[in-house]
Amino acid sequence: MQNIEYRDGGLFILDQTLLPNEEKLIEIKSAEEAFDAIKRLAVRGAPAIGIFAGYAMALFSKDKDIYPLRDYLNSARPTAVNLMWATNRIVEAYESGKSLIDEAVAIHNEDIEMCRRISEYGLSLLSDGDGILTHCNAGELATSRYGTGLGPILLGKEKGYNFTVYSDETRPLLQGARLTSYELEKAGVDVTLICDSMAGLVMKQGKINAVLVGCDRVAANGDTANKIGTSSLAVLAKYYGVPFYVLGPYSTVDFSCKTGDDIVIEERDGEEIKELYFEKPTALRETKCYNPAFDVTDNSLITAIITDKGIARAPYEKSLKEVLK
Amino acid sequence: MQNIEYRDGGLFILDQTLLPNEEKLIEIKSAEEAFDAIKRLAVRGAPAIGIFAGYAMALFSKDKDIYPLRDYLNSARPTAVNLMWATNRIVEAYESGKSLIDEAVAIHNEDIEMCRRISEYGLSLLSDGDGILTHCNAGELATSRYGTGLGPILLGKEKGYNFTVYSDETRPLLQGARLTSYELEKAGVDVTLICDSMAGLVMKQGKINAVLVGCDRVAANGDTANKIGTSSLAVLAKYYGVPFYVLGPYSTVDFSCKTGDDIVIEERDGEEIKELYFEKPTALRETKCYNPAFDVTDNSLITAIITDKGIARAPYEKSLKEVLK
Repeated sequence: MQNIEYRDGGLFILDQTLLPNEEKLIEIKSAEEAFDAIKRLAVRGAPAIGIFAGYAMALFSKDKDIYPLRDYLNSARPTAVNLMWATNRIVEAYESGKSLIDEAVAIHNEDIEMCRRISEYGLSLLSDGDGILTHCNAGELATSRYGTGLGPILLGKEKGYNFTVYSDETRPLLQGARLTSYELEKAGVDVTLICDSMAGLVMKQGKINAVLVGCDRVAANGDTANKIGTSSLAVLAKYYGVPFYVLGPYSTVDFSCKTGDDIVIEERDGEEIKELYFEKPTALRETKCYNPAFDVTDNSLITAIITDKGIARAPYEKSLKEVLK
Repeated sequence: MQNIEYRDGGLFILDQTLLPNEEKLIEIKSAEEAFDAIKRLAVRGAPAIGIFAGYAMALFSKDKDIYPLRDYLNSARPTAVNLMWATNRIVEAYESGKSLIDEAVAIHNEDIEMCRRISEYGLSLLSDGDGILTHCNAGELATSRYGTGLGPILLGKEKGYNFTVYSDETRPLLQGARLTSYELEKAGVDVTLICDSMAGLVMKQGKINAVLVGCDRVAANGDTANKIGTSSLAVLAKYYGVPFYVLGPYSTVDFSCKTGDDIVIEERDGEEIKELYFEKPTALRETKCYNPAFDVTDNSLITAIITDKGIARAPYEKSLKEVLK
């Protein structure tokens, strides 16, 4: 079961809002349904949103003028850079008279190829039997195939590697529980779900040979923004002598961003901490919450940054440019 | 509102299973109701269970023979050392012909006095305006008054100190959200609830001047068992240069336990991670969970251990004995 499928002229997605309790493939039949699927996170993860929007643009420009269609889809998640990038790419194909659906398929295939390269570079740093800790979700559900942070695990599984994976549940949105443990289980990987606060103990117990995480933005010096909790894992990994690997597309490196201090951290609603997913609120209505969505991991804590162009190691100012050669 | 109250000849408790959504004071009118209150965690926290059991023994030995009553109450939570200690103390009072209710009140008052001493020692290490991080619940709900880990904050509040407290929600049982943030809010303390994975970020941001935690067992060398996640906080505090304080009764020091390696960590049901408190399961039924209830913090990560007998600092083998002098 794939997260996004184009077949027999139709566009299908696995509704991620229902996971892990229900696996429902839904057909997206209009621009309005595509907008809604992005908006309500039925499809999520930057690369996956881009792939999905490519298909939606190609299919629904039959019903709607392509420029307003682009603006309409872009408005479903205004901060998703991949969404704008993909819809623009279909518009450019339109302007050059190319097949739109071929262009959408190309976006999809390029993502698979990019994930495969990241996964292969990542896998080259692991050994059969390794214990791996991961955080949040950077797998197939968020991309096309393999994923980024989970890529070496899923590609490794295909190649006959056996890893023992610990998945942080990743509060407050529980992507590690709902998505990562789900997709690893489905792929037949040996996965164990833990609370975020247990990661230090499993490292101390010697169960972890590598920490693998995705990334939302990498600064020119290697400082990396990723899901809240990532930087704490990096501190723990350093303390316990465990390699800490960041995995992502080379396009995630933002050379206009000198250090992590230039990265603004999104603060989200406290309701996500106190109420979302729970039967009853976990704290009093008047209790304040602080809910940062990301944190920045200092480059000194990162063993290597693994991109589709190659593996960078400290000093990152230099190595992140040199991998292109 | 107190967690345990003896007044007008009746025994009342705040039902902690309903917090923070409902504040219900219930009267405990029989040995059966007392057993049930302990069993279903309506009263919880080692010192609080002891205090409650003392009153229950004194009151309900009118209806039941005292020896079977003791065994009956002890069986409500067979691993709770304070429960056995308190019920035995009432039996001893009975054997020496003392007033049982006076003995129960004495147990209660001694706990208040012990917590006050811990709190005063702890407060001597803090400054007005400090930012404090805490984990799990070691406050008034778990003891009598002030608490241990939260003691300096609550005593400080009485004395006019203003602290800015960050309370980890403390997965999987959410004691930080349900109990700590509740009792600090009620006491008028400036408290902010965060997920466990956010503790590193608030330290990095310079918001934390001290970490205060309780303890379940302290080995002779200072290694400390406490709620899962505590040792990770200690690693983070060391990395970010924040003092890390352990607070607890001197009786928590177990000199028969040489190091933390001698402390067995209780592993609990994975259902607590995947299902408890949630509307729907967060992961697949077949997904394994690892759910250790405690971890052990290495003594090298602890700035001081604060007991009712005084403040111990490294080397703890020596200092934990010397505070008695």
